[in-house]
Amino acid sequence: MSEIAIGIDVGGTKALAVVVDASGRVLDELRSGTPHEHDADPGARAAEVVADQVFELSRRQEFDVHQVPIGIGLPGLMRRDGHLAFAPNLQSASGADLGALVGESLGNPHVRVENDANCAALAEHEWGAGRNVNDFVMVTLGTGIGGGVIADGQLVRGHNGFAGEIGHMVVEAHGAPCRCGGHGCWERYASGGGLARLTTIAALAGRLPSLVATSGGAELVRGEDVTAAAAAGSAEAEAVIDELGWWLALGLANLVAILDAGHFVIGGGLSQVADLFLPSVHRYLAELVEGFADREPITVVSSMFAGRSGAMGAALVAMGRDS
Amino acid sequence: MSEIAIGIDVGGTKALAVVVDASGRVLDELRSGTPHEHDADPGARAAEVVADQVFELSRRQEFDVHQVPIGIGLPGLMRRDGHLAFAPNLQSASGADLGALVGESLGNPHVRVENDANCAALAEHEWGAGRNVNDFVMVTLGTGIGGGVIADGQLVRGHNGFAGEIGHMVVEAHGAPCRCGGHGCWERYASGGGLARLTTIAALAGRLPSLVATSGGAELVRGEDVTAAAAAGSAEAEAVIDELGWWLALGLANLVAILDAGHFVIGGGLSQVADLFLPSVHRYLAELVEGFADREPITVVSSMFAGRSGAMGAALVAMGRDS
Repeated sequence: MSEIAIGIDVGGTKALAVVVDASGRVLDELRSGTPHEHDADPGARAAEVVADQVFELSRRQEFDVHQVPIGIGLPGLMRRDGHLAFAPNLQSASGADLGALVGESLGNPHVRVENDANCAALAEHEWGAGRNVNDFVMVTLGTGIGGGVIADGQLVRGHNGFAGEIGHMVVEAHGAPCRCGGHGCWERYASGGGLARLTTIAALAGRLPSLVATSGGAELVRGEDVTAAAAAGSAEAEAVIDELGWWLALGLANLVAILDAGHFVIGGGLSQVADLFLPSVHRYLAELVEGFADREPITVVSSMFAGRSGAMGAALVAMGRDS
Repeated sequence: MSEIAIGIDVGGTKALAVVVDASGRVLDELRSGTPHEHDADPGARAAEVVADQVFELSRRQEFDVHQVPIGIGLPGLMRRDGHLAFAPNLQSASGADLGALVGESLGNPHVRVENDANCAALAEHEWGAGRNVNDFVMVTLGTGIGGGVIADGQLVRGHNGFAGEIGHMVVEAHGAPCRCGGHGCWERYASGGGLARLTTIAALAGRLPSLVATSGGAELVRGEDVTAAAAAGSAEAEAVIDELGWWLALGLANLVAILDAGHFVIGGGLSQVADLFLPSVHRYLAELVEGFADREPITVVSSMFAGRSGAMGAALVAMGRDS
């Protein structure tokens, strides 16, 4: 049997566990719900969910739960020492060392943890849409925006291990308030949540008359209604998608300025409709990037593993293939 | 004689050449003017200035112009192949391979080139205010803002070699127009040029009544007047400096979000009055950085070598100590 590892992507609502071999093949997978509420014993319930997943997969795939390498991807600021410092989307585990808890529960000394978007970047770099690219940024577009930065082939972790919080780059000083406490963060404009905001503004301004009519009110038009209508060719919906593309390109152009990234891999829920907004993103990048004509062409593509890249990257971390 | 190298920082108005030994001691230095105008033979006149500096220093320090390692720091987008792709502040050399021209002129095969702010970052990392720090950003505040990013102890060069163009990070979408063609670039708010802009706006808005009176008109108040008045304790001037500090902190907070930089070294002309604005910068960082309390304290300090760090870093590049 070839070497395998377990990768588990623990999100705010679900945990995806995969069994991956050394070549990146997914042999099995399992989804479970994650605990929402605060916990007197931080991380205890999340650790239980993860340990149960490992047990269940071990029954199906016949590996040793005490020995199999396990990697866990977590949402939020991950310290280099393994503690989850700040995790607004997984408050039940905030402050915990989930790797240690899972390791104790399973009697397994081979458990490692990493930020979820960093995991996704590692998986795309090793096996996916960032293969053979040394300078790229993984951009996960969900409710917010997560990121993983690969510079000269290496994951950038930063001083505390918190690098890649690209969604909280401010692109509009004094702009829209953000759940982080700041104002004008990129994720308020260019994520799934950003699309919802742009949609509401457009609907209230009378720029989505057909969708407002079918939805029964300006406040009732959702981002999903806009993407569905744009896919069906609605010009009013396409205009909102184009606006989303402009904001996306603006943040990517900032990452180009700072890092000279030559490539971007888009993941997260919104990447499922990337075909709708990528043409706008490419068009606006040419306007927004300083010295665009003097650079190699900048490419923006969808994640190769969609929702699985975080879990697959966690398996790479488990294998020690993350440096 | 200990090993020496020549480092030359070629700017828009002057070139500073230094003779440096392996421990970072500056043994000699020389300043010359640089050619402003366009040139039919791009880089020829700038190369002549540099070669003349090397000859003059060789007479004083008795080294072999054919053998001494030479590093040249240049303003603008430097390709990894040594060509200056885009240099608004040194248009006479735009497109040229200045290293090759200088090497031919001197009959010296040991000439290397690098972006000037990257050079400054290397010098501060090796010998100066970024010593023993693995994740920091060099921020040079002149007319614009240049930058050099050190991540995990390595200079980040990026896909084309253009990394560190932090001044063109957009912090105000649809903001003030920039000479790069964009709008709302950080350097329009937080550089020497940015201070001039904030000063004019404050003067026109009636927020600098004393300085307007002594200058003879709102349009005549310069950034230097504000820093001088702030140093003398003028509250109206201190308010503009505080505003500059807010904009500086905003961009630094973005770099913290993306890179988790734990330290910043401020260089360039404006760093000479860093004592005036650093207290505001530190105060606003605590407000603007996501998860500030969960991080190690973020430090912002002045360059240790002031105007010499670019030239000293170019000497490091010459010695091959830039990786």
